[in-house]
Amino acid sequence: MAEKVTIATVARHARVSRQTVSNVINAPHIVRPETRQRVQDAIVTLGYRANQAARQMRTGRSRLIAVRIEPTRDGINGSVLDRFLHGLTETAEASGYRVMLYTAADDEREITAYGDLLSTYDLDGFVITGTDHGDPRTAWLAEREIPFVTFGRPWDHPQAHSWVDVDGAAGTAEATGHLIAAGHRHVGFLGWPAGSGVGDDRRAGWRRALLGAGVDPDGLDTGTEDGIAEGARTTRELLGRATPPTALVCASDSLALGALQTLRGAGTTLPVIGFDDTPVAAAIGLSSVSQPLGDAAARCVDLLTDLLDGPHRDPRQVLLRPALVLRHLA
Amino acid sequence: MAEKVTIATVARHARVSRQTVSNVINAPHIVRPETRQRVQDAIVTLGYRANQAARQMRTGRSRLIAVRIEPTRDGINGSVLDRFLHGLTETAEASGYRVMLYTAADDEREITAYGDLLSTYDLDGFVITGTDHGDPRTAWLAEREIPFVTFGRPWDHPQAHSWVDVDGAAGTAEATGHLIAAGHRHVGFLGWPAGSGVGDDRRAGWRRALLGAGVDPDGLDTGTEDGIAEGARTTRELLGRATPPTALVCASDSLALGALQTLRGAGTTLPVIGFDDTPVAAAIGLSSVSQPLGDAAARCVDLLTDLLDGPHRDPRQVLLRPALVLRHLA
Repeated sequence: MAEKVTIATVARHARVSRQTVSNVINAPHIVRPETRQRVQDAIVTLGYRANQAARQMRTGRSRLIAVRIEPTRDGINGSVLDRFLHGLTETAEASGYRVMLYTAADDEREITAYGDLLSTYDLDGFVITGTDHGDPRTAWLAEREIPFVTFGRPWDHPQAHSWVDVDGAAGTAEATGHLIAAGHRHVGFLGWPAGSGVGDDRRAGWRRALLGAGVDPDGLDTGTEDGIAEGARTTRELLGRATPPTALVCASDSLALGALQTLRGAGTTLPVIGFDDTPVAAAIGLSSVSQPLGDAAARCVDLLTDLLDGPHRDPRQVLLRPALVLRHLA
Repeated sequence: MAEKVTIATVARHARVSRQTVSNVINAPHIVRPETRQRVQDAIVTLGYRANQAARQMRTGRSRLIAVRIEPTRDGINGSVLDRFLHGLTETAEASGYRVMLYTAADDEREITAYGDLLSTYDLDGFVITGTDHGDPRTAWLAEREIPFVTFGRPWDHPQAHSWVDVDGAAGTAEATGHLIAAGHRHVGFLGWPAGSGVGDDRRAGWRRALLGAGVDPDGLDTGTEDGIAEGARTTRELLGRATPPTALVCASDSLALGALQTLRGAGTTLPVIGFDDTPVAAAIGLSSVSQPLGDAAARCVDLLTDLLDGPHRDPRQVLLRPALVLRHLA
């Protein structure tokens, strides 16, 4: 059997001290790139193993965080979480963490996935996306004192844990305000059915802006499932009302695309503003509310590493402001 | 100090045998869901640690595979790799593997990332995306005998290693054939500059179909960087040629969107077919060639686990056929 490969073997091979090898393994970002590359090459060439285990024993950290990758739906709003995921991976790397993915079709199966992940990879923590009222996932993690941060607010208990979110209401209020400033009063809203945290928040911003301008929002509100077909159908319904809207603010780009389809079919144009600034919006010239996803991802990593460094610190909350991106369709 | 938590402690707490605990850790898919949940709960509750290290020692596997997450470009074609990533995560889970992400701005930095990942997480293997001529990444991995499979062909040496790819030429040939069957002869091609494996492949299918119909493709070919603006500019140039095209096949949906912009601006319509069947194509009714990304991801996992189970097996190659999705714009 070949000689056992130790840190000393690696150090000798790479012509560095054992401390440098240890640094490359435990805190690679503090080692000069050329040296790091040389040491890593030695580690790979010599087949030095069990570093992860050794490091975990020394640091008590796996330096792994997990996040769910969303199933592909219509693909339009899916791009939001993909951009978040990219930002998360990039920022985590800069702090010496790696991102592990998992899938889950619903909350219950997501909790099963937590068990799988924690029992086999000894993860440091989770970034949980898409919170809703009475979220069983955060309850499960909190009960077991597993570090996590959510991208999305705990709608029932705003101070319950660390989270990062985007102020959706500020986004729809700004979109509505823009249309009011352009002379519109009857600004309709294509939203989701009442009851979801995110959906209610986006509706609240639109309502606030209309009420601020002295317009009664009640006859201009709608609630439907997300989707292009649903947006098209709801727009037809809105246009048939006693006081039809002269402009539209939407809770998603999918709904906005549906609205544009109906308007085109009816031979009319109204200004329409979407939400999420997806690639589809950019491609067709649809104005939309843009979430600062890279920033949100970076703050999630900040808050999570904060919890890992000091588990008994108070939870922290970060609410980011979205930006209205104006294009030729509104 | 508290009693050390061992497999026996977990077994006692979950009222199962030690073998069952071991199975939950090493092969969770063979354990009944209720039992698995109970054992995992015990592991998490008792804080049983170092499983990963223990398992690695027993099985020689970390059960982790790594894949790069692409930087966000215009976001239109980005959705292709996002859908691939989702499929990969889902299939890997079913085989007992997890997917770890990394980012890299170019090939050189990607190789640096391999070093980081291998020296700190002891990964089982890599899924490499976006191969090109003389790819330094696969050479680096092959030299070190690190298991990998590529999504994309090694264009210079088709049998060099295991890979999965989609037959792009078959896709553009089918798209061109569809337009020829509809009565077109001068089918133009919006492609990328010659020299890239993927781009040349997509061009080859279009050429083959035109030549098969007795049409000389030379005056109908273009090469430009990917992007909406580039597609718009190239279409203007094509329309000004001696024999302008009466229909267009494109190497990407971004180029196709640019073509549609120019055509709309010029007040004309021609059938246009894109490539990749992105959400944008679906949203605006653009016909496009669709890659079977879920299937491609699943085959990548198959081939990689095959290599892990029998490292000295011959490399295997899988070429999948794309599908032409027809919509109202062509």
